Amino acid sequence: FINGKLCKDPKLATPEDFFFSGLNIPGNTSNQVGSMVTPVIVSGLNTFGISLVRIDFAPYVGLNPLHTHPRATEILVVVQGTLYVGFVTSNPDNRLFTKVLYPGDVFVFPLGLIHFQFNIGHTNAVAFAALSSQNPGVVTIANAVFGSDADINPDVLAKAFQLDKNIVNQLQSRFWSDNDNRN
Amino acid sequence: FINGKLCKDPKLATPEDFFFSGLNIPGNTSNQVGSMVTPVIVSGLNTFGISLVRIDFAPYVGLNPLHTHPRATEILVVVQGTLYVGFVTSNPDNRLFTKVLYPGDVFVFPLGLIHFQFNIGHTNAVAFAALSSQNPGVVTIANAVFGSDADINPDVLAKAFQLDKNIVNQLQSRFWSDNDNRN
Amino acid sequence: FINGKLCKDPKLATPEDFFFSGLNIPGNTSNQVGSMVTPVIVSGLNTFGISLVRIDFAPYVGLNPLHTHPRATEILVVVQGTLYVGFVTSNPDNRLFTKVLYPGDVFVFPLGLIHFQFNIGHTNAVAFAALSSQNPGVVTIANAVFGSDADINPDVLAKAFQLDKNIVNQLQSRFWSDNDNRN
Amino acid sequence: FINGKLCKDPKLATPEDFFFSGLNIPGNTSNQVGSMVTPVIVSGLNTFGISLVRIDFAPYVGLNPLHTHPRATEILVVVQGTLYVGFVTSNPDNRLFTKVLYPGDVFVFPLGLIHFQFNIGHTNAVAFAALSSQNPGVVTIANAVFGSDADINPDVLAKAFQLDKNIVNQLQSRFWSDNDNRN
Amino acid sequence: FINGKLCKDPKLATPEDFFFSGLNIPGNTSNQVGSMVTPVIVSGLNTFGISLVRIDFAPYVGLNPLHTHPRATEILVVVQGTLYVGFVTSNPDNRLFTKVLYPGDVFVFPLGLIHFQFNIGHTNAVAFAALSSQNPGVVTIANAVFGSDADINPDVLAKAFQLDKNIVNQLQSRFWSDNDNRN
Amino acid sequence: FINGKLCKDPKLATPEDFFFSGLNIPGNTSNQVGSMVTPVIVSGLNTFGISLVRIDFAPYVGLNPLHTHPRATEILVVVQGTLYVGFVTSNPDNRLFTKVLYPGDVFVFPLGLIHFQFNIGHTNAVAFAALSSQNPGVVTIANAVFGSDADINPDVLAKAFQLDKNIVNQLQSRFWSDNDNRN
Repeated sequence: FINGKLCKDPKLATPEDFFFSGLNIPGNTSNQVGSMVTPVIVSGLNTFGISLVRIDFAPYVGLNPLHTHPRATEILVVVQGTLYVGFVTSNPDNRLFTKVLYPGDVFVFPLGLIHFQFNIGHTNAVAFAALSSQNPGVVTIANAVFGSDADINPDVLAKAFQLDKNIVNQLQSRFWSDNDNRN
Repeated sequence: FINGKLCKDPKLATPEDFFFSGLNIPGNTSNQVGSMVTPVIVSGLNTFGISLVRIDFAPYVGLNPLHTHPRATEILVVVQGTLYVGFVTSNPDNRLFTKVLYPGDVFVFPLGLIHFQFNIGHTNAVAFAALSSQNPGVVTIANAVFGSDADINPDVLAKAFQLDKNIVNQLQSRFWSDNDNRN
Repeated sequence: FINGKLCKDPKLATPEDFFFSGLNIPGNTSNQVGSMVTPVIVSGLNTFGISLVRIDFAPYVGLNPLHTHPRATEILVVVQGTLYVGFVTSNPDNRLFTKVLYPGDVFVFPLGLIHFQFNIGHTNAVAFAALSSQNPGVVTIANAVFGSDADINPDVLAKAFQLDKNIVNQLQSRFWSDNDNRN
Repeated sequence: FINGKLCKDPKLATPEDFFFSGLNIPGNTSNQVGSMVTPVIVSGLNTFGISLVRIDFAPYVGLNPLHTHPRATEILVVVQGTLYVGFVTSNPDNRLFTKVLYPGDVFVFPLGLIHFQFNIGHTNAVAFAALSSQNPGVVTIANAVFGSDADINPDVLAKAFQLDKNIVNQLQSRFWSDNDNRN
Repeated sequence: FINGKLCKDPKLATPEDFFFSGLNIPGNTSNQVGSMVTPVIVSGLNTFGISLVRIDFAPYVGLNPLHTHPRATEILVVVQGTLYVGFVTSNPDNRLFTKVLYPGDVFVFPLGLIHFQFNIGHTNAVAFAALSSQNPGVVTIANAVFGSDADINPDVLAKAFQLDKNIVNQLQSRFWSDNDNRN
Repeated sequence: FINGKLCKDPKLATPEDFFFSGLNIPGNTSNQVGSMVTPVIVSGLNTFGISLVRIDFAPYVGLNPLHTHPRATEILVVVQGTLYVGFVTSNPDNRLFTKVLYPGDVFVFPLGLIHFQFNIGHTNAVAFAALSSQNPGVVTIANAVFGSDADINPDVLAKAFQLDKNIVNQLQSRFWSDNDNRN
């Protein structure tokens, strides 16, 4: 077991261990945020240092909401549609970097920074994204902050986000859909 | 220049390049969140793979608000006071791990996960925290989301955080104090 | 300068430093092998640990010929067409792993192993490939062996490849087109 | 098992796996050198890349004797007392870097170099030290040289240290107390 | 198990786990290429990050044929004889770097590049080579290309190497001796 | 400049940058310890992750005295003579691992541990040693402890080594020859 997966004896590996099919199939974007991340799952070998996903966006305005990857930089290429994408740099400047992307355009989201992709076109949008780890991790900010399995103390959230405590309570009682359940 | 700093010729290094003073001086917690992070700045050499800060918390209820370190795990020891601390695991579970810490207690915040420390005692609280990088980076979540230098499209934030767009606009117009300006 | 490129002061970075356009444009496959690799070139920042290319293949039988990446594992997704792909494991077994890929299929080529992609369909084929380094390197086997800038001693090649020396001389006098000039 | 410890299934982790208590309790310095290192032991997870210790020093003249950490740089902050600290650079210069530290002062001991801390004050001294590995290792020089489990050939030691062989024999017959039994 | 080997409990390690004998014994060069690589095999511990081999070459003209190490740079010292050595840089330049080496001469072969050593003297030649990984891997180019366990599609090889398909078929039917069976 | 050396533009590199001669020449062992380490110095490129030395030992009893390499594991092969070699494990066990080596024998000295080689034969002895870093560093224990450029406080040394202060003073006033001046 390495990184939580069983390592095969290399002599027993087969081409199937390096193969995955299905990235031609659109992900189901019928959820709160209107997007879905479909990961490539390659069994048996897990020291590749890289991974790949397909991301589908519902037409105006499917959103891959603000999130980070604790262990990876991401490089994304748009295959279809029009995406408004961005990330915010770390303290103290918190600079916003954004771009509107069309098919064939590529954007890089540096390791650990908060980023998003937003379908501002009136058709479905599709992108492929590669990540610099076989186990990048995903922290969807709103889900981690307001939708954790047990509630964070509302006083902490009210103070951190300058929100009325009633609003915090409302947010914590909501359902937070998960468009990216890599683990 | 490595990691943005000038590397000295080792033959010209002096003890001062390995020395820093001032972690006995309380940080100024007179700000919105009631906490201050004081980093150790060691000139000249920057490939140590480690760094150290002092964190001060105002009495009930100084908060080091939700943030991540893109490039470091953090280990914290409480020197004075009572801290309620926690982090949230990555998708899909978003499990909340919390603990109340007293002097001499230690807690670890894994790389890239959202975490916070909250003074639930009625005295000042003080902690030292070490990080597994000389350049860990800090992303204060609320500041990056609602206080970036240019505003993130409010439609993105309203959808991601299930907030009324008026509230997003209000949050974006607020001042977000920076209690941790490491860069 | 890191890895041979100038590192920008992060404060001067702009969204353009994270952006590249043109992966929607087919590469020119009018060469000996009938394929072309189009790399993403992202200026200014070069510590991403990842890179991306588009690969175009002429109809039956465009070939991305046998090559290695000295510093990267590759993950490839087929966007259009039908590719017969493969790699050979290292000594002592030299096992051949192959697969026929259709759109949406993904295959992984482990670090440093000899691999190829071959268009066995009667239309153009297109793939995206991500690599686990910003500077993966490419060694096209035939070009390095028979087309180096100065000729390798023909006795070495005749013995290593069990080839008649006349054939070695012929091969060394040929033109070896370069379908992948990343450096 | 990674680095000699069992890795928990992350789904079974609890806050206790990130928690340690007791760094408020002075270590027992009643030994030959007059100091004690108390490590933080965090069960279950061992890929943190960082560790933390408390070091206690008896009043004038508790010593954390010359030692190295084969796999870590150390950053130390004085909490109480007055420490004379130092390290020696590698060949060929063997430069001595020293500093007298008071509460709030910080010093860095680079990876693998011989270093020490010496209480030159007339009260107990206390420091926290963080190390850039979860498994830094400790080689106490005198213990490894003169107190190894089987004796090093005395001719080797006499020649290496320019010592009379009788003195080597005496040193090898002594008890060498262990103030730092991290492993 | 790490990297396919059982990791001993360090407390059970013995000097034998760090010891290997036999590099004084010439390897058997009675094979097609006239060379033999004898690796050091050190049981029990496999995280050393380094390995060592002896290479024997038959008199005029023993050849260690073109190969790569996917995970290591190699540094070679000639102990006896005269070797013509070389490597070819990666695309797009494919520059040939060569040198004639005599006893006491040293040459470095960078990670992942195709290289060879050729005995141009009329005596046996002997070299030691160290590699920057405990598990460098070896890809003997001709064996991987023409001698894989299942044949690569001959159309692929004919096109990649500008060879007549009959010649490809002949090469694939030959025996390819293995002078380096590290795995 | 990387690791203190100028990095050449790869396009300007020549075979000389990968070449070193002279390891056939015995090092001068006319010094206090009766041994000499001759390093390979390869100009221009310094990211190889490996280095190589020749070590010469005067007949009975040349000694490569107790030392550590802060950044490398070492693998040594005996070419001539008979060496008694050993290392001591880290705390708390400080186990001594030794072996008598004859020509063709190999021994591994793990990263950061104190080790030595001792010529117990009546002829010159010669070994090659490879290290898992291009910049391994050398800390000769006696030289760093008793021969640093400025003296370590004798009270520190007397206490750490259980030596009479007069003996410490004598040792500090001696000349400590340097048989290994890699830096």
